[in-house]
Parts: sequence; structure tokens; C-alpha cells
Amino acid sequence: MGTLANESFSIELQQLDAATDTARNQRTQWLLTSPNPPSFFHQLINSVKKNVDKTTKQSTNGVFFSFLKGLFPILSWGRNYKCTMFKHDIMAGLTLASLCIPQSIGYANLAKLDPQYGLYASVVPPLIYAVMGSSREIAIGPVAVVSLLISALISKIIDPAVDPIAYRNLVFTATFFTGAFQAVFGLFRLGFLVDFLSHPAIVGFMGGAAIVIGLQQLKGLLGINHFTTKTDVVSVLEAVYKSLHNEPWFPLNFVLGFSFLFFILMTRFIGKRNKKLFWLPAMAPLLSVVLSTLIVYLTKADQHGVNIVKHFKGGINPSSIHQLQFNSPHIGEIAKIGLICAIVALTEAIAVGRSFASIRGYHLDGNKEMVAIGCMNLVGSLTSCYTATGSFSRTAVNYSAGCETVVSNIVMAITVLISLELLTKLLYYTPLAILASIIISALPGLIDISEAFHIWKVDKTDFIICIAAFLGVLFGSVEIGLIIAVGISFGKIILGTIRPSVELQGRLPGTDTFCDITQFPVATETQGVLIIRVNNASLCFANANFIRGRILSIVTNRSEEQSKGKLRILVLDMSSVMSIDTSGIVALEELNRELVSQGIQLAIANPRLEVMNKLKVAKFVDELGNRWIFLSVGDAVDACLNAKMGDLSTINC
Amino acid sequence: MGTLANESFSIELQQLDAATDTARNQRTQWLLTSPNPPSFFHQLINSVKKNVDKTTKQSTNGVFFSFLKGLFPILSWGRNYKCTMFKHDIMAGLTLASLCIPQSIGYANLAKLDPQYGLYASVVPPLIYAVMGSSREIAIGPVAVVSLLISALISKIIDPAVDPIAYRNLVFTATFFTGAFQAVFGLFRLGFLVDFLSHPAIVGFMGGAAIVIGLQQLKGLLGINHFTTKTDVVSVLEAVYKSLHNEPWFPLNFVLGFSFLFFILMTRFIGKRNKKLFWLPAMAPLLSVVLSTLIVYLTKADQHGVNIVKHFKGGINPSSIHQLQFNSPHIGEIAKIGLICAIVALTEAIAVGRSFASIRGYHLDGNKEMVAIGCMNLVGSLTSCYTATGSFSRTAVNYSAGCETVVSNIVMAITVLISLELLTKLLYYTPLAILASIIISALPGLIDISEAFHIWKVDKTDFIICIAAFLGVLFGSVEIGLIIAVGISFGKIILGTIRPSVELQGRLPGTDTFCDITQFPVATETQGVLIIRVNNASLCFANANFIRGRILSIVTNRSEEQSKGKLRILVLDMSSVMSIDTSGIVALEELNRELVSQGIQLAIANPRLEVMNKLKVAKFVDELGNRWIFLSVGDAVDACLNAKMGDLSTINC
Repeated sequence: MGTLANESFSIELQQLDAATDTARNQRTQWLLTSPNPPSFFHQLINSVKKNVDKTTKQSTNGVFFSFLKGLFPILSWGRNYKCTMFKHDIMAGLTLASLCIPQSIGYANLAKLDPQYGLYASVVPPLIYAVMGSSREIAIGPVAVVSLLISALISKIIDPAVDPIAYRNLVFTATFFTGAFQAVFGLFRLGFLVDFLSHPAIVGFMGGAAIVIGLQQLKGLLGINHFTTKTDVVSVLEAVYKSLHNEPWFPLNFVLGFSFLFFILMTRFIGKRNKKLFWLPAMAPLLSVVLSTLIVYLTKADQHGVNIVKHFKGGINPSSIHQLQFNSPHIGEIAKIGLICAIVALTEAIAVGRSFASIRGYHLDGNKEMVAIGCMNLVGSLTSCYTATGSFSRTAVNYSAGCETVVSNIVMAITVLISLELLTKLLYYTPLAILASIIISALPGLIDISEAFHIWKVDKTDFIICIAAFLGVLFGSVEIGLIIAVGISFGKIILGTIRPSVELQGRLPGTDTFCDITQFPVATETQGVLIIRVNNASLCFANANFIRGRILSIVTNRSEEQSKGKLRILVLDMSSVMSIDTSGIVALEELNRELVSQGIQLAIANPRLEVMNKLKVAKFVDELGNRWIFLSVGDAVDACLNAKMGDLSTINC
Repeated sequence: MGTLANESFSIELQQLDAATDTARNQRTQWLLTSPNPPSFFHQLINSVKKNVDKTTKQSTNGVFFSFLKGLFPILSWGRNYKCTMFKHDIMAGLTLASLCIPQSIGYANLAKLDPQYGLYASVVPPLIYAVMGSSREIAIGPVAVVSLLISALISKIIDPAVDPIAYRNLVFTATFFTGAFQAVFGLFRLGFLVDFLSHPAIVGFMGGAAIVIGLQQLKGLLGINHFTTKTDVVSVLEAVYKSLHNEPWFPLNFVLGFSFLFFILMTRFIGKRNKKLFWLPAMAPLLSVVLSTLIVYLTKADQHGVNIVKHFKGGINPSSIHQLQFNSPHIGEIAKIGLICAIVALTEAIAVGRSFASIRGYHLDGNKEMVAIGCMNLVGSLTSCYTATGSFSRTAVNYSAGCETVVSNIVMAITVLISLELLTKLLYYTPLAILASIIISALPGLIDISEAFHIWKVDKTDFIICIAAFLGVLFGSVEIGLIIAVGISFGKIILGTIRPSVELQGRLPGTDTFCDITQFPVATETQGVLIIRVNNASLCFANANFIRGRILSIVTNRSEEQSKGKLRILVLDMSSVMSIDTSGIVALEELNRELVSQGIQLAIANPRLEVMNKLKVAKFVDELGNRWIFLSVGDAVDACLNAKMGDLSTINC
């Protein structure tokens, strides 16, 4: 009876085995007969088709109107614009203008242009953006970092102190290129280019730029006449030290600048404590300008060494079409500067736009924004504006002042226009030290120490990128900082591909799931079977040899550890490998040959569509044998365990 | 009764549910409590430790000897060297020398050096390699591609026709740098640098270089005196056309060269048909040289326009230590040329060495080979040799001639040395056309059309890389060809990271396995649950926004297809994602917020060790909730299906 029962039991087991075998074979068949991936040319044609389809989906009549609406979002939201919204927008716009006028003059000074050019850039670009842009909170105008970039990069070509007109022409030309690049990025959906400046790189870059900008302000704050055109900390401090030692200097500049800086920072402190007084810090700069101008005018301090603005041409933006220098011998460099400014300006604008859009709960289309910002800079370059973008600090003020739509930008632009017509003569006596203190007061917003700390906590490599960008800007130049940051970011990506990790897997108790044994110490390895997973999306020329070497060294180590039993089968989990190239296939072939020479059978688990197809084409599947390719690691291990010793020994000989 | 049975059944089901729930929770616990990955600094220290450990593992006594053995493999195999082996090696060495002497003279001519420098490079480097290298078959000496590289790159700095001595000094200096770079690569285990020239790039580059070298031989073959220093097809053909039109030319050169080229190719054909006559094609070049020299000497053809070698200084290698130009103003460029030659020479040597090693069934250590090749070039640069490496064609001859060890290289070097002492005066009348035909006859081996076809079949992108390298060399320059090939190769890697694929998964019938529904059309999606897998090893600044956008657009499309039921849960399979940076985390946070606003719950399946840790540190796990993180897609889907509608609705509100 007992033997009978045993027999029937073993027959049942065999039947069960046979059933699981059949199911497994069925799954392997699915794998082997999976559809061919689209061919290379098919993919190319498809991706073109998709883009064409997108534009021809609608009826021709609707297309034009939706195209217009897409290009000019004002056509959509303008129809629902209400009087109550305008009330809010006019308040926000006036607050914005009061902050924008002194800041624009200061930034023009930073960009080494006459003060009116800063105001020009606060008139035309906001108006263009208002009809084309989709952000409701962004405040458009000149910003500190781009002004610094322009002065640092273009000063290298022409010294503004020697030939201010040629310098200014190059600035307009660079702005033209900036706008052109930005519009092209948007039109060709190259929005991802902005992602190349990773978040930690931006944090580091902005922090470094803020300090550099602050140091540049020492010129105005201390009333130094001879300054350096370099931007790195060492050169600037050297220039300051030399000036203070060799030239007479007038402490009045410092006293004026410092006291108003204190005043502005005080109002900001009050504004933060009492949210209702948000207008106080926004008005403080304008108030400082008015007060200090009055003081200088009344006390005739300009005759006692206080540097004043002096040149300030009023009137609306003149045309600058004929000042664009496309025949300049420096055109290549100017285009490069345009590209750098385009990317930095877009990064800032899109970061600002997105963060406020997410607060208000709507989504910004990066590519559309790029077209809008590109167009505003293109038009700007023809109307005497230098590169404008979305400003961090002013957008925050615009938001706290309760703006409802981009109409606040229109209000601001008109206010600035009126002041250009009426008030510029009054600003003759404005001390430069006040402009410096207004710029300095805006800088703390650019230095984000808490974010740098967060980056440090989450990702050390990111922190290195952040610090590298910071130090690069500080001790090298803005360009070097950017290049270092982008270089490290991409170096990290390439390093990840060149040196991918390879992990040992084990079975989780009570499941058919196989996991990394480092991540899950409970996972157990199967005797005689080694499961190795390749942790990279591509097995290619850059890593194939490395992966082959790593796997072989693991196999060698394992063969030495006698305790774990003789190694008979190596299961290579290819779930993560999405693509393989000829070098990758050669590496697999070599690996297989070397394993065979050691009496170890190679099994491939879960090869993906493209990989499977290429392994077939390259005849690797034939070399290995269909039966050693499995849909999952579980199937592979089961098959290996089920295989009778006879089976395995025939393989091993 | 019926209801009772139903009840007990439903209780059983509930118990079963509870049991699976517990098991699942247990698994999630494993995930949540997985060990912390080693910190950044820990990893750094570990990788340094590992390298130090490797060298200090053995006892100090054994260390020195094993170090010596590692550096000079001859100490290992030399003790087992037998007389029978020497018989084979001497035969192979003599065959090799007979091929090497005419080829070396020809390649020296290609490198725009006097002929003896080619022979010098066939004396010292093979001797050094013989004591340091581990390949048994490789034949060391000057090769066509490196000779072309040297003449093409250094001619740009100094024209050898104007100042041959300064040119030669720069060649030695470049060789010094080549050796130094190669040795450093080997010592610092930077062997992977050689992988940067992917296999298809090498195939294309070699093919293009072969054609360029062939075109360069038109000078000798046609007896042209005024030639171009450029290497691209257009310039060379232009120069040939101009010369033939404007200068008198002597068809005798062509007749001589072409008839001996025909002779050499004939012998090769015969050698291929009859394997026993392998020595015939190997001896043919030397035979051609002897015969043609005799013909010219006897007929005094040199007085009838046949160009002959003339300058040929005999004697062993003179020292060239004092000719190295480290104070040259071109030192930077020379170092760059040294680097390019180092990589190309290593690529060729290691490819040759590895392929013959795999035929004989032993493994070559790339890093050790680099040290050996670097040392031989370093010593070579001090003894009037220019860059030598492993030659494709001569290694094949060495192998067919039955070489047993690298002793055949020693035999060859000594034979070349003897000919330098005794025979150089006899080569005064050797016609240049013969050297040209010897070089041309070696070129077909460099053009691997069948491999190019194989690449085309397996991988279209690889084929584009191959063709780009080919055309770059042909119509640009050797440098441009290399840069294009490396550029496209890396561009492909970066593009893969910037635009990773995102796939929809479904359950394979009868299993708990979830697979790509494109690869497995049998896989079925679960109603109300969308499973998306990110197919890249890193979720980082370069792709985070793209992935977020792709996922959201899939969700939007799915929500529009009413037929598949309301979408309630999105399972994000992160199995492939090995690392995440701050930008990646921000993208996940934004994705979660946008899904929540659409009433969809996000679930994360199988986050890997590093990712899980960072999600914890960045508090994303807290934001999402532990219960929405699962060990596998199967667990996630089961949990979603088991969850009562009430549960889901509380999530959705």
C-alpha cells in the first residue's frame, strides 16, 4: 500500500512537473515569438508623422484659430477678463513699477549700460510677454544674473569704458541672438535643453553669481573709479584693495549707500513680520532713490565726491535695428554669448514661472514659454532693450501684491514708460551708491543655503555639482562655473553607463520573486545557480567589457568558495537592459564561451524586445540554444532545478 | 444551508485575503527596513581600500616576486621554454622579418621619415614587448594607421619637406608621450578608455584610413614629386590631377610598382588556396624589393625618372634622448597627438592580441598589455623609434608560421638588426614605387566589408557610427573621423539617458509576472490600474521632466479612453531605476501632486536600495505613505484589487 501511495504520489509530482514545464515552455514561446520591434527607419518616419499629425488633427478652420490662441494666450483669457481683476492687477502693477524702476537702473549699471537701457528693457519685453506668455505671475524685466553675464562676457570683447557705443551695439546683437535661440528652442520643442542645467547646478550658480554681483557693487558703494573687468573674487578684491590704497576715496558714498541698504533691509524685515505691509519693502527702493537724490541735490554732495548717475536720456525706447552688428568680426563669440544668456535666462524664467504656476495650480508649457520669451527678446533687441527674463524677486512681489493676470506687467510697463518720459531728469542727482545698495538688497534671495543643505542631505554628487558651480563662478568666471556644472552633470551620466553595477540576486522566502541580496538580506541564493542582474539600460561598447569582466570575477570568486557547492548555471537577468549594440553582443558571446570552458551553463532571463531581436539576428540565440532563454528569473531557476542531473551533466561536458 | 456555506466560503476568502495581506505587508516591511546603502564617503574609501588590498594581499616576500612576474611575464613562461618551441619560433621569426623589413621601410615612408627609422621601430619595441607583454602571437612594429596619424598630425605643425630634422624630433617627442600615456593608462587601470573607440567606429575608421593610405601611395606609385600634406580624398585627388597635368611624369614608376603589386597579390591568392604555401605571400614583399632593386641597379632606371630610396643610413638604433623636444612651443599639441596615437595604437594592439588569444584559448589582461606597450614606446622614443604597436597583418603571418611564444619577435628583431648592420647599403636603388605597392598590398586586410554588413544587420545606429567614422576620415581628416565616431557613440549614450522609454505593463495570463504589453501582446492590463515602468538606470535632471511628462500624457490618453474604465491607480515600476537625484525626486513629487489632483493614487513598485533610501531622506515616502510602496508590481496590483471600493474612494477624495 505504502509503495503504491508513494508511486502514485511520485506520478502526481511528475505530472505536476510536466504541467509546470509546459507552462514554462509556453512562456518561453511568448518570448521567442514576440513581435519584431519597429525598424530603425520606421521609427524615424513615425516620429516625424507624430509631429505632423499633431498639427493637422483639427479642421483647417479651427487650426488657424487654435494656432493663434496657442501663440497669443491673451485671446483665451482676455475674453473672461473682469473689472475686479483689473483692480487687483493695477495695484500689483504699480507696486511692481516702484520696485522695477530702481532695480532696472541698477541692473543697467551692472550690465555697464546707461541707466535708461534698464528702463527700456522694462517696457517692451513685458508688453510682448503679456500677449504671448501663459504665466500669470511672472514679472518680466532685466535681472541681476543675466546683466552680470552680459557685462562679464561682452566686456572681454570690447571694453565699455573705451567704446561704450560699440559695446552697447554688441549687447543688442547678443540680445537678438538670445531671443532667436530661445524662440528656436521653443519652436523645435528643445525645451529639454533647459534641463541640462540641473537644479543643484542652478542653486550653486545663482549663489556664486549673487556673491559676484555683490562684489561688483563695491565699486558703487565705495565710490571707486578704477575697477576690474574680471568678475572673480580674487581680482575684484585686489582691485578694491588697490583703489582704496592708491586713490582718494570719499566715505560719503559708503555712508549714503550703507544707510539706505540698512533702511531697505529693515523694511523687508518688517514686511516679513507683518504680511499686510508687503508694499513697504516693495516701495523702499524707490523711496530710497527719491530721498537720496533729494539729499544729494540739496547738500550738493556730488561736489564732495559722491558719484551720481548724471547721464540719463529720457523718452521712449528708440529703434536699435541699425545697431545690430551682424557683420562684426566677433559674430561667432556674440552668438555663443547669446546662447549662454538664452539658456540661463530661460532657466530662470521657467523656474520662476513653474514654481508660481504650481502654487496657483496650473501647468506651464515650457516650449510655449520659450517662444514667448524668445519673441520678447527679439523685439526687445530691435527697440534698445537688453536681455529680459522673469525675475525671482519681482515675481514674488507681484504675487504678494495680488496680481490676477499678466495685465500687471502691462500696468508696470506703462508706468515705466511714463517715468521715462517725465521723471528721468529728476534722477540726474541719484547717487550710484544707492543703486548698488538696491542691487545688494535683492541678492539674498539668490543664495539658497537651505536648498544647498537639502541637496547635501539627499545626494552627495548633486552637492558636489552645486559647490563646483558655486566655486567656479566665484573663483573662475560665470562661464567656467556653468561649464563645470554641466560637465560634472554629464560626466555623472556617462560614468553611470561606463561603470554600471551588477548585482547578485536571491529568492525572497515564500515567493517567486528574485531580488538583490544586498538590498534584501533575507533573500537566499540557490545552490549551484548564480543569478546576476545587469543594472543598466544599455549593454554597449562603453560598458560591455566591464560587465563581462565583473561577471567573470564574480564567477571566479564563487568557484573558490567551495561551501556554496559547485557552480553549474549562471542566470543573467537582462530585465533592465533595453538596448544592446554589436560590442554588447560580442561581450555576451565571449562570456558564454568562457563560461562553457569552465563547465558553467549560461541562461538568459527576461531579454527585452530590442535585445531579444538583436540576439536573434546576431545568431546568439542559436549559439546558446532556445532552451536557455527564459521569460523570468523564476522560470530560469525552476528549469535549472527541475533539469535532471543527467541533463546538466550533458551540458557540462 | 446555502447561505451558511456561502458565508463560511466568504469567511475563508477573507482569511485567505488576510493571509496574503500579511505576507504582502511582510514583504513591504523588508523593503522599508532594507539596510542603508554605503554612504558616499564610505564608497570612496572602499574603492581606494580595494585597490590597496589587491597589492598587499600576499606576503611581502611573495609580493616582490609576483610583482616582477606580473611586470615581466617572460619570468613565468621562460622557465618552461623548450627547444622544440624554439624551432617553431625561429621559423616564424624569420618569416616575420622577411615581411617586416619591406613593410617597415614602407611605413617609415608613409610617416615621412627616412627608411631606417621604420627598421629601428622593428628592433627595440619588439624586444621590450618580448619581456613585458603577455600575448604570444602579436607581431610588434610600425603599422600603417599610426604612421598615417603621425604624418597627418605632425605635418600640420612642421612640414617634413622643409625641416626634416625638426619634424623627426617632434615625432620622437610624440612617441614619448604616446608611451607615457599608454603606460599611465595601464598603471591606473584606465583600460576602459580603449573601449571608447567602439567596435563599429574602429571598423569605419580602419576602412577610411586604409583608403587614405592607399591614396597617399599614389605619390610613390606614380612618381609624383609635388604632393599635398592633406589626407582627405578631395585634396589628394586634386594634387594627383594637378601633378599629372603640370609636371612631366615617368610611367616607369607606375609600371614597376603595378607589376610587383600584381605579383604580391598573386602570391597571396596562391597562399590562400594552398595553406602550405603560407610563406609565399610573406616572402613576396622582400622578394619584390630584391628583384626590383636589382632591376633598377642593372638597368640604371633611376636615371630615367624612377624614384629610388637613396638615403639609407645603416647601423643599430642611435640614441634619441637629446632629440626629445620638451621645451617646444608646440608641446601641448604634441601631447595631444601622443594621446590620439596612444589610444589608436592600443586599440589596434589589444584588438589583435585579444582575437588571437581567444583563438588559442587564453585571456589577455588589457591593463598589463597597456603597460608593456607603453614601456616599449617609451624606450623606443629614446632609441630613435617612432610609435610601434601590434600589426594586424604581421600577427596573422606570425600565427600561420606557427609561432609558439613571443620569442619569434626576438628572432625578428635580431634579424632586422643584422640587416640594418649589413644590408642597408644594398637598398640604395630600391624604387619607391615598390614600397608603395607593398603598403597597398597590406591594405585590404584593414577594410572589413563583411563586418560592416554584419553591423548593418544587427544595429543601424552602430552602422551610422561606422559610416560616419569612415566618411570623416575619407573627406575630413583622421582626427575628424575619430572625433565624429566617439562623438556619435557618446551622443547615443546621452540620448538614451535624456529620452528613456517608458512602457505599459500587463499581467501575463496564468502568472504573477508583469511585462511590457508591446513585447507580449498576450499580457492583459488590469481595469482601473495603469502600470508604467521607467526604463532607465537613473532618474535624473536630464530625464526627470521628460519622464514626468510622458507618464502624465499616458494618463491623460487613458482617461480619455472611457472603455477601459476609470483610472484609479498608477503603479510606477521602478525596478530598473538604480539611482535618483534631487531633480528626479522633485519630478516624482510633482507627478504625485498632479495625479492626486486628477483623483489618481500613485503606487511605487520595487524601488531599489539607493532610490528607496533617497525617497526616505527626501520625505517622499512620508508624503506618499508607506502603504503605497510595494516590493513588486504583483503586490501592488493585488493590493489595489483587494482594497475595498471604500478604501479607494477615501483615497480619491
